[in-house]
Amino acid sequence: MGILSYRDKKERIVVGLMSGTSCDGVDAAVVRISGSGRDTELEVIHGSTFPYPADIRNYMLSLVSGDSCSLSAMSSLNFLLGEIFGASALKVIEESGVNLKDVDLIASHGHTLWHSPEKMFGTYPSTWQTGESAIIAERTGIMTVSDFRTADVAAGGQGAPLVPYVDYLLFADDSENRVAVNIGGIANITVLPAGAGKESVTAFDTGPGNMLIDYFAKVISNGEFDYDPDGKFASSGNVNEELLARFLTHPYFEKKPPKSTGREEFGERFFKILEGSGFKVPEMSAAPGGKYDHGGYGRVRSYRDISLKDMIATVTALTVETLSSSIKQYFIPDLLIASGGGIHNKTLMRFIRERLPGVKIVDTTHFGIHPDLKEAAAFAVLGNETIMGKPGNLPSATGASRPVILGKICGERAL
Amino acid sequence: MGILSYRDKKERIVVGLMSGTSCDGVDAAVVRISGSGRDTELEVIHGSTFPYPADIRNYMLSLVSGDSCSLSAMSSLNFLLGEIFGASALKVIEESGVNLKDVDLIASHGHTLWHSPEKMFGTYPSTWQTGESAIIAERTGIMTVSDFRTADVAAGGQGAPLVPYVDYLLFADDSENRVAVNIGGIANITVLPAGAGKESVTAFDTGPGNMLIDYFAKVISNGEFDYDPDGKFASSGNVNEELLARFLTHPYFEKKPPKSTGREEFGERFFKILEGSGFKVPEMSAAPGGKYDHGGYGRVRSYRDISLKDMIATVTALTVETLSSSIKQYFIPDLLIASGGGIHNKTLMRFIRERLPGVKIVDTTHFGIHPDLKEAAAFAVLGNETIMGKPGNLPSATGASRPVILGKICGERAL
Repeated sequence: MGILSYRDKKERIVVGLMSGTSCDGVDAAVVRISGSGRDTELEVIHGSTFPYPADIRNYMLSLVSGDSCSLSAMSSLNFLLGEIFGASALKVIEESGVNLKDVDLIASHGHTLWHSPEKMFGTYPSTWQTGESAIIAERTGIMTVSDFRTADVAAGGQGAPLVPYVDYLLFADDSENRVAVNIGGIANITVLPAGAGKESVTAFDTGPGNMLIDYFAKVISNGEFDYDPDGKFASSGNVNEELLARFLTHPYFEKKPPKSTGREEFGERFFKILEGSGFKVPEMSAAPGGKYDHGGYGRVRSYRDISLKDMIATVTALTVETLSSSIKQYFIPDLLIASGGGIHNKTLMRFIRERLPGVKIVDTTHFGIHPDLKEAAAFAVLGNETIMGKPGNLPSATGASRPVILGKICGERAL
Repeated sequence: MGILSYRDKKERIVVGLMSGTSCDGVDAAVVRISGSGRDTELEVIHGSTFPYPADIRNYMLSLVSGDSCSLSAMSSLNFLLGEIFGASALKVIEESGVNLKDVDLIASHGHTLWHSPEKMFGTYPSTWQTGESAIIAERTGIMTVSDFRTADVAAGGQGAPLVPYVDYLLFADDSENRVAVNIGGIANITVLPAGAGKESVTAFDTGPGNMLIDYFAKVISNGEFDYDPDGKFASSGNVNEELLARFLTHPYFEKKPPKSTGREEFGERFFKILEGSGFKVPEMSAAPGGKYDHGGYGRVRSYRDISLKDMIATVTALTVETLSSSIKQYFIPDLLIASGGGIHNKTLMRFIRERLPGVKIVDTTHFGIHPDLKEAAAFAVLGNETIMGKPGNLPSATGASRPVILGKICGERAL
């Protein structure tokens, strides 16, 4: 399949692949797309999440929690993740019942190793997604688009968030004020005023999503859980308002959108705020063999006078407070469309309902998209825009100087 | 410019960009190409080499001589080199007198950070070229192809050498046995038997080109030269046949083609052979501020009983011996077509004439291509193949399982 025949088709089968900051695994969605731009129609045929092998996940987590690496390891990881993404694409296609030869495109977000689009001392604005698309294209025989964020950063944007353009295509309404909320490792919102054009869409990362919650779930459960199951850990504690107020002084929350963030700001480094306040935070390091080293966790059971249960309740409230206050800056929405792993956290969703009373809350299933697959499906839509030769960024969301064509095309054939 | 209009044009203006392993600078060529595959016709309009700023060059050399790095630095470097490549493209276009809007494509090889296509313990076969093409495309407004080596590695190949396909397109002859020789940091040959089809073309890296010579030129000149000017350092010494014989025991020279190599094997690590033989080799490290730290060089003036002058003569002979014996395995050529920085080294070229008596030796100027620009022009030809949707690798040269379409296309527009 090449660009020419792709553009000639009325309906195209696209596989979207996403690897989130939590390093859980590869989200893969097989979708049917017709049209492009405002005429885009999307049907999710099938999707799956393929967890990373524990050793690879631990390696990836250890990488992104630090900064040092080696050229050989980064070059290897790029090709190894390409194999995993390619195998995930083949597997999800097989599960979907779609014939491999009927798949027109793979759109692979890749795994973010570094995202620092701001000018800072000692670095140059950049973003880095890994997972070699040439491997994906070779193993599947399918044209592949990757590296969606670099062109937006090149145009002066944050390279994120990118999904809001898809939110706008799929969820914007003529009469309702709507907001799309995705709660992954980082949480983000897309503000969709009733009847607005794309230049009026605002979208940004509001701050941590599940990232801090997952961290404390691991500590509390002694490594058994790397997320808060149903939000039960958070529901067993109480929000410490003093600490929440201290968290809210983080400069990111004061910044005006467009803005984006990641593990660089809300990973373990975030806890330096805590440490500066006299709280002790244990370090979690991945030990060889895929097992976590819990050295000291059994003993460190409280942070000054805050129990771990209150701590996880407090970081859950932090996610919700930053999310809901960000939304309220624009309007009280008629409809909140939720997606991402956070929607399975009942305590977090209860907190949202408490802080946004009267707002109708649905997840993306309401629009035929399983919420766990929303981002993977969104990148399938963005890949479709790339091959159709259309810009896929929203300058109002990313801060880019102009709409640009996203991604790099690999394995394009003349016919 | 998009793929469709590109394919419709009879003649296309393409900029080729190459950054060699020696980290000297960016070789940029503006070429006119018509046709594709065997019908390719190439005219080099203009070319230049833009040296890297000293601090960037030293940083790149320090990176590739070691292995450790940081995610932030590698992500920054990718975007920073993208800026340098983009600026080089704009500058060479301006120098050429061609109108920017008449340029149809940029083909950027990028700078190799890691190249290890063999299965080895602890790594996964991979190759890594850096220099963000999204930056190049954004700064120039021109569609850009990059990452030429990954698809070949994905198909089981060495990802190198790639230029032999272009040698075949441009230099193969019906009645003459020819060999194209490029002497960059690494030396490589393309064996072009008279009247042969592309499956009969053999090409491989023969071993070091200028890499070891440059190293000793730096030591001898106390950092004033980073190459042997006109080969005068080598001509002042004598080849030490015992040491040359020892060098020739390096396992790379025994390997059957297809094979490729790089700084990983013939950078400073190569000197471990020397050290194992009781020779002391000083380490050269890039100090802050772009100046080399010559600590100890003034004192270390000989290696056991070999003078530095004899040493540089011996590594020059090593390049020539491995090159010429590789060629003789196939035939005594009617014509040797030389390119690369090594052709300016008169001692090296004299050694070649001595070892290949009676062979007509020309440089690529004979075919209208300035030898310093051959690789940059070759990548322009390979970029043309990519956009025309045609494979650009020679499986007989790279060992790939099949011909594949090389590269990733960035900034393709619908119109």
